[in-house]
Amino acid sequence: MTTTSKTPVSPEQQEVEDRLVRNVVSSFAACSDARLQEVMVSLVRHLHAFLRDVRVTEHEWAAAIDFLTRAGHITDEVRQEFILLSDVLGASMQTINMNNAAYENATEATVFGPFFVEGSPEIDVGGDMAFGAPGEPCWVEGTVTDTDGNPLAGAKIEVWEADEEGHYDVQYDADKRAARAHLFSEPNGSYRFWGLTPTPYPIPDDGPVGQLLTAVGRSPLRAAHLHFMVSHNGNRTLVTHIFPEGDPIGEEDTVFGVKDSLIKSFEQQPQGTPTPDGRAVDGTWSRVRFDIVLAPEGA
Amino acid sequence: MTTTSKTPVSPEQQEVEDRLVRNVVSSFAACSDARLQEVMVSLVRHLHAFLRDVRVTEHEWAAAIDFLTRAGHITDEVRQEFILLSDVLGASMQTINMNNAAYENATEATVFGPFFVEGSPEIDVGGDMAFGAPGEPCWVEGTVTDTDGNPLAGAKIEVWEADEEGHYDVQYDADKRAARAHLFSEPNGSYRFWGLTPTPYPIPDDGPVGQLLTAVGRSPLRAAHLHFMVSHNGNRTLVTHIFPEGDPIGEEDTVFGVKDSLIKSFEQQPQGTPTPDGRAVDGTWSRVRFDIVLAPEGA
Repeated sequence: MTTTSKTPVSPEQQEVEDRLVRNVVSSFAACSDARLQEVMVSLVRHLHAFLRDVRVTEHEWAAAIDFLTRAGHITDEVRQEFILLSDVLGASMQTINMNNAAYENATEATVFGPFFVEGSPEIDVGGDMAFGAPGEPCWVEGTVTDTDGNPLAGAKIEVWEADEEGHYDVQYDADKRAARAHLFSEPNGSYRFWGLTPTPYPIPDDGPVGQLLTAVGRSPLRAAHLHFMVSHNGNRTLVTHIFPEGDPIGEEDTVFGVKDSLIKSFEQQPQGTPTPDGRAVDGTWSRVRFDIVLAPEGA
Repeated sequence: MTTTSKTPVSPEQQEVEDRLVRNVVSSFAACSDARLQEVMVSLVRHLHAFLRDVRVTEHEWAAAIDFLTRAGHITDEVRQEFILLSDVLGASMQTINMNNAAYENATEATVFGPFFVEGSPEIDVGGDMAFGAPGEPCWVEGTVTDTDGNPLAGAKIEVWEADEEGHYDVQYDADKRAARAHLFSEPNGSYRFWGLTPTPYPIPDDGPVGQLLTAVGRSPLRAAHLHFMVSHNGNRTLVTHIFPEGDPIGEEDTVFGVKDSLIKSFEQQPQGTPTPDGRAVDGTWSRVRFDIVLAPEGA
């Protein structure tokens, strides 16, 4: 009889299913890479436990194959549907949690996201990373230190964010670079740059992941954020965001990336307020302080 | 501290990880499709249990994203890497097991595989499904009945197999059709056709799934087999294979598809042995009997 999650499974049927799991696990017995074997055996056990828990139907199995196929076909150099899938299932954030466990006062990590691009333009300290991307200017400043408070000079600070339309540069054109740059901390560990005040935006939702979110009644919106990746020799590389205080998306962030310690006060400045570096700004601007603390390498 | 599967996880860290799982599960609370909600919640619980069990590293996570991306890019209308992946992890066979539980004396099911094509050519009873594909001719005959032994007339019998080079028609050319056909059982439930004696062959192993099998020390070989899909109004559609007795691959079948009841005696006939229908055959040929018993619909 076809079983469903509500139908008890006979001992004979359980044995058929258990035997298959044992056979699949045994097929990895000759693997010479102990870690790969550990990962594959655990994957097989959990995958089969899931399939048996929900008593997956053949129709659902086919829908899953179709979902993965469509995800594969929409993925290219600048669109990464599998990262989006990992993100909306919390798998990306769980990986970050496990590999960047809290260490003393070090700044917490969050998801990498699918929009990092290697080889961003370099800007000087105090430069503008927006490169003409539309949005309210935002003055970002802070220091990079180790967990003992010693300044870290020459830390590479990669920053990237969406514009006020909710799009990253590569979503307009694979070759476009804007609202994306890197700079290096000064000898006393300080850094500052002009960026854009972050605004909430949907993850790309015109593909299978967006369809899944719609089907389950979830919003595709990400809490507003500004991405940082900070690396310094001898320290653990930090991949994180900062989130503006008061963003109504907050806990509903569709990739589960918000951590309390990363919510920062972006203070909006009325039109005409003098800027820290004397730059002329038409209209309002904001400012935020983000002091970055790197854990030691291997922490 | 970075944890590995050998490092105990602190209670604080466990709570961080548990809280994320709770948040992801809660994100499906508004899903109006109860079954979809059940599947997604179970998927999330098992996925996170797997990631935490192996303490997946960021490098491994990135390798998984890359694997899925490459699987997506090699997949097209005639190459289905995600089905191959499901097959080699035993997920396809487990789905078959659950949805085609043993029912009285009904013929057992096995994996569908990635090479079925809709719209195969029709042949008459006694016709040749090889359409020139190379291999030793094989006379296949039997009956289609219900579980009470009543003949089933007009059952649609789809058959497909690899040639003696180990390739299906679509692997030569997406539009080619050979060693693939369908016929209908006669009023007394009997059927017969000429096919090819099945030979072992590797699953397509020039993609990420093949690389995975190599990395874990597994063979890509499938036990020799001939595919059947048999459908008849009022009966459960049967997707299965038959396997020649004595095939050394047998239990090592890379997709775990072999079942004892599906191993059949393919009797090789010496050169010059008269054929059942008087057809002239140069060289050896084989014959096999396969009596098909369909379970009732909904069984």
